[in-house]
Amino acid sequence: MISSNEQRIKKHLETLAQFTSTPTMGVTRLSYSPEDILARTYLKQQMKELGLSVREDAIGNIYGRLDGVDNTLPPVVIGSHFDSVPNGGAFDGTAGVVMGLEVAALFQEQKLKPHCPLEIIALIEEEGSSFGSGLLASRAIAGLVSTADLESMHDSNGVSAAEKMALVGFDASKVESIVRKPGDMKAFIELHIEQGPILEQAAEDIGIVDTIVGLSQLSVTITGKAGHAGTTPMDMRSDALLISSQLIGQIAQFATEEGETVATVGKLNVFPNGSNVIPSKVVFSIDVRSKFIDKLSRVVTRIENTINAVNGGNYTAEVERLIYIKPVDLDKAVFSTLNDCSQQLGYKTRTMVSGAGHDAMIFAQICPVGLVFVPSRDGLSHHPDEWTDYDQVAKGIDVVFAAVKKLTGIA
Amino acid sequence: MISSNEQRIKKHLETLAQFTSTPTMGVTRLSYSPEDILARTYLKQQMKELGLSVREDAIGNIYGRLDGVDNTLPPVVIGSHFDSVPNGGAFDGTAGVVMGLEVAALFQEQKLKPHCPLEIIALIEEEGSSFGSGLLASRAIAGLVSTADLESMHDSNGVSAAEKMALVGFDASKVESIVRKPGDMKAFIELHIEQGPILEQAAEDIGIVDTIVGLSQLSVTITGKAGHAGTTPMDMRSDALLISSQLIGQIAQFATEEGETVATVGKLNVFPNGSNVIPSKVVFSIDVRSKFIDKLSRVVTRIENTINAVNGGNYTAEVERLIYIKPVDLDKAVFSTLNDCSQQLGYKTRTMVSGAGHDAMIFAQICPVGLVFVPSRDGLSHHPDEWTDYDQVAKGIDVVFAAVKKLTGIA
Repeated sequence: MISSNEQRIKKHLETLAQFTSTPTMGVTRLSYSPEDILARTYLKQQMKELGLSVREDAIGNIYGRLDGVDNTLPPVVIGSHFDSVPNGGAFDGTAGVVMGLEVAALFQEQKLKPHCPLEIIALIEEEGSSFGSGLLASRAIAGLVSTADLESMHDSNGVSAAEKMALVGFDASKVESIVRKPGDMKAFIELHIEQGPILEQAAEDIGIVDTIVGLSQLSVTITGKAGHAGTTPMDMRSDALLISSQLIGQIAQFATEEGETVATVGKLNVFPNGSNVIPSKVVFSIDVRSKFIDKLSRVVTRIENTINAVNGGNYTAEVERLIYIKPVDLDKAVFSTLNDCSQQLGYKTRTMVSGAGHDAMIFAQICPVGLVFVPSRDGLSHHPDEWTDYDQVAKGIDVVFAAVKKLTGIA
Repeated sequence: MISSNEQRIKKHLETLAQFTSTPTMGVTRLSYSPEDILARTYLKQQMKELGLSVREDAIGNIYGRLDGVDNTLPPVVIGSHFDSVPNGGAFDGTAGVVMGLEVAALFQEQKLKPHCPLEIIALIEEEGSSFGSGLLASRAIAGLVSTADLESMHDSNGVSAAEKMALVGFDASKVESIVRKPGDMKAFIELHIEQGPILEQAAEDIGIVDTIVGLSQLSVTITGKAGHAGTTPMDMRSDALLISSQLIGQIAQFATEEGETVATVGKLNVFPNGSNVIPSKVVFSIDVRSKFIDKLSRVVTRIENTINAVNGGNYTAEVERLIYIKPVDLDKAVFSTLNDCSQQLGYKTRTMVSGAGHDAMIFAQICPVGLVFVPSRDGLSHHPDEWTDYDQVAKGIDVVFAAVKKLTGIA
């Protein structure tokens, strides 16, 4: 018997899926875009209807708070992010935001008064799709993002994150006001789709994560020299795309050789990008992950050395580490609470490693953290066909609801 | 003693250079863009002031006609294109359009009445920067472009050439109305910057082209499968960018191995282009050139076979020949006229092969054609720093003016 309301969950997920700049081609909801504003308006309205005190912070994260018996206590915080990758799915991040709404709805419906406050959150820019810098909201909340950082990261049109924020009424100069210190949150629990095939293949309902892989994101700029495609002999060219192509092959090779490590060049832009102009500049991203810190470190170093070796002569090569996060072991007590709740509800439960980075891994620096996975059909994610059955989402929410009751001192 | 007016030439070139979407970063003037409209308005106004009858055809080419003594005779046509590559220079194409204006100004100033009509033209979309299909205007005039072609070629936002035309008042459905048959033009003469270092290094003034290299432009689409960058092992990926990178290396290698041939991947777009999404699709252009038809043919075939071999399994690969033009020998009589005029003017003159494609090579299918080069500083082109001294442009215009007087029966 599932506690949470599958119809409400369905309504929220379907509504939020409409806030996309690429209708019929998946969900594209970049932070601070018109679709972000539509989603944000909907979320704030829903939170208000659930009797929560709603606020947005300086960079646009949304908070809905349910007062507790003792409001001097730090809150239990639950939720996820509501931005998406370009042409992504309707569940990545959003499922965890809907979890927050549904847990609050269950509290309201069952007239539960938590002992400590309960806070549901909807975070911006986890994917890094806008400014090439993922986990932005949680890193800002953990005090790892400065105003200067927000001014120096840019979208593909050259507009800075700070400028984007200002356009929709947020204020990068106040990013320090959103910082929470150790002790400010009793616990953080995130629900997320697995984004891999393991739960589905094992016909299991729930994954409780004990470790999140380490993650590094790099930004690379290779500069050569433009020239006419017809009048410059092959041996007199400084073709930035040709050099970049060699690097892309090497980057993949390094990860394969290391094993239990992945490396991806997902975003690449060519300048000036004319069919008869030799490319003068290529800018691309590299994403490297491993659950072993030594493997992550070796591959990142090897990539950096290879790119730096391009420097000199006819090319310049710059590589910058945007993010470098070690593998994270999540809180054992929260893990046990979630695991016990899932077992008691009779759901088939598995202990898992997360291959994707999540805001949970950042919050683990400032509070005890738990992370619940629900199955992804065909293991597919970051794709328009991303899917989790609504009853599977509901089961995940049930687990979080049960754990939140314990953590807020009700059950 | 230079006949043409360097100040007028300077004014035209500087004015037209302002019609760019990338101020301070070179000239970006795509066909049918706001900058095209500004340039076209200026050109039509200048032509009117020179006493020419001005008209635009169905796809936006501009014609300024000076009646002759006998208007039943086919006109001598002179000019070039006024579109640019992204972040290109102020001279490529535009210098030849300004040549047309200046020759007409000299006719007006010297009260010359040609025997046959003189027509100056400003052509759209020579570069192929908007729709990946170069030499569009001349190919349309030569009857090689259908309405269906204009409907099926798209810009990077997915808008077709036909739609773009309609937005600014042109009509792709009437493209056949602009066709000119053999006999409709007495001759076509184009002036263009060299776009290479030969004239400058030899300290020469004028290049008269006798051969234009053969040219093929291909469009390639590689499709793999999107997936999350963190949860998909390296050996289970179908990464469209990784495969494309290998192809880009091979394409360059094929041209190098063949010799006297160049191959360029200048334009490449990644989809969905998110830093943590495995690329599902990559679309790129290939530009191949050689003055030897057998070399051009071998390299293009080798490229096509290599791309087609990617098909099957986890990838689909499509390659389409947008353009395939054999090397072209220009008209010997027009060449001699230009060469004689240049010598008589006392300019240092060289016979040249053009490594770049030009509208002249298309017009060679329907009339006798001549092509005059002026020096490019540092051999640079398709670059913001593209430069030719105004007196060098003026010398080139003098040569065309002298030849046009002969061809129109005045001198």
